[in-house]
Amino acid sequence: MTQIHATPSLRPQDAANLRDSLTVRAGAIESAIDTLIAPVTRGGEARVVDAMRYATLGGGKRLRGYLVTEVASLFGVPAVRALRVAASVEMLHSYSLVHDDLPAMDDDDLRRGQPSTHRKFDEATAILAGDALQTLAFEVLADPATHPDAEVRIALVSALAKASGAAGMVGGQMIDMEGEGRALALDEVRRLHALKTGALIRYAADAGAILGQADAATMERIAAYGRDVGTAFQVADDVLDATASAEELGKTAGKDAAAGKSTYVALLGIDGAAAEARTLAERAVTALDGFGAQADGLRALAYYMVERRS
Amino acid sequence: MTQIHATPSLRPQDAANLRDSLTVRAGAIESAIDTLIAPVTRGGEARVVDAMRYATLGGGKRLRGYLVTEVASLFGVPAVRALRVAASVEMLHSYSLVHDDLPAMDDDDLRRGQPSTHRKFDEATAILAGDALQTLAFEVLADPATHPDAEVRIALVSALAKASGAAGMVGGQMIDMEGEGRALALDEVRRLHALKTGALIRYAADAGAILGQADAATMERIAAYGRDVGTAFQVADDVLDATASAEELGKTAGKDAAAGKSTYVALLGIDGAAAEARTLAERAVTALDGFGAQADGLRALAYYMVERRS
Repeated sequence: MTQIHATPSLRPQDAANLRDSLTVRAGAIESAIDTLIAPVTRGGEARVVDAMRYATLGGGKRLRGYLVTEVASLFGVPAVRALRVAASVEMLHSYSLVHDDLPAMDDDDLRRGQPSTHRKFDEATAILAGDALQTLAFEVLADPATHPDAEVRIALVSALAKASGAAGMVGGQMIDMEGEGRALALDEVRRLHALKTGALIRYAADAGAILGQADAATMERIAAYGRDVGTAFQVADDVLDATASAEELGKTAGKDAAAGKSTYVALLGIDGAAAEARTLAERAVTALDGFGAQADGLRALAYYMVERRS
Repeated sequence: MTQIHATPSLRPQDAANLRDSLTVRAGAIESAIDTLIAPVTRGGEARVVDAMRYATLGGGKRLRGYLVTEVASLFGVPAVRALRVAASVEMLHSYSLVHDDLPAMDDDDLRRGQPSTHRKFDEATAILAGDALQTLAFEVLADPATHPDAEVRIALVSALAKASGAAGMVGGQMIDMEGEGRALALDEVRRLHALKTGALIRYAADAGAILGQADAATMERIAAYGRDVGTAFQVADDVLDATASAEELGKTAGKDAAAGKSTYVALLGIDGAAAEARTLAERAVTALDGFGAQADGLRALAYYMVERRS
């Protein structure tokens, strides 16, 4: 097992604090989602709501939601608002996982150690649940409870749409599928991941700053942080896929190589990819210069992204 | 073939005017969509954009888009704004058709006389194209070019999300699939269609009034019109499915009965369903009392909904 280590790293006490903070925050985000997707007890649509809840309430680290709330806290945004946006980003992320797991896509039976949504329900229900989760993400953002200023809400909607459509997450997934069984150049892999996973992670950081009505220069620093953290996350993910076990990951391991996908590891080697992840995390932290101790959670998160074991 | 006729009906000159008007408007909406989904020539995501264009630019009557623009014109909304919202509703509608046609859903090879999107491309691309069309619908609404007032744009986003999610269109599709092979009561069929097709048609009418910043009383009259026209459309659709040929419909005919679906026709008979459609159209027209000749297009549309042959 390759150890990913260099200095500066995540100090043990910071790692412990972050773990606690992630656990508490994941609980709060889970609770927000639980409230926003109320179970339906009557009518045929109860099934799709059950599937939406199954797909979103199955745990997970809620890294995207954590990003929203940590950035929002830099600007003194009330937690109730930040949690709604965090829940919305997690719904959007969950919809993408539900659809990516479908037989026609990545055909994955396992997600976070549990049957994927189409295995637990059926394909039609999974397609519909994904569809409705995307819709609900926008509905939550558009609600005045998210922010009293319509300009803020529409900025959240607009940025989420751009991050998740054909020029963002969905485009990245298409590039990924188109690239299977073909060797992609490093530039192509970078672009694939900037869209497929990077865009939504960057949105999560941006959304906190939008909620906080940050000025343009501050927005740009947060965006720089989000961009690098997003890429670091994916590079580290490729390393994990190549080195960790299915038990650690809670999902099928080694799938990238099996699917003939071009990964950072295939292009840079495990050590090279790990070094790149580290460099990106350091650059992300540099973007936070000027923010005080209140940004320590975001700094720790950047290192955590590349040091996590699952 | 059962003739659907009663008085008052669509007068021949009104029918001719409406046909001309629908054709011209469909061209303008198609052109708006063509501009909003610009082809991508480089990168792996070109394929999903091609599929999005295929799914949305294949013609169709654009009844929902027509509704948006006709209602908007009552309030003097500039055409360029109304056409953006019309394009957005048509994208949302197209996404639902792409996903509904999938093998795991209605498994339909034919749409408007052409291969459905997953037949023309493949299932994965069709899933992604549908996903991205939904996203783009919200992105277009959120853009300042749609309306300079953020309150108007967020109202358009919020209402579209409510109309198309688990408490709207997707919920209706789930009820429809849950009800296959089981006899639904008339109340259940009404609710199914109020969600599955009614919600988006009503949204189309509402959106025109939102764009026009109509007062609450006027909004309610437009909503009443949209509600009845939406139901009339679906009842008439059931009649068409039972009586028209695949050639006339441009899609597989008689599918409802084959799928064991409970329809208005199954519950009311062809004549009974046709009479109900007619009653709904008349009530929709009554909701427009007080609007002058400028609402004649909407009145003609209500009758057209129940007299169309495809």
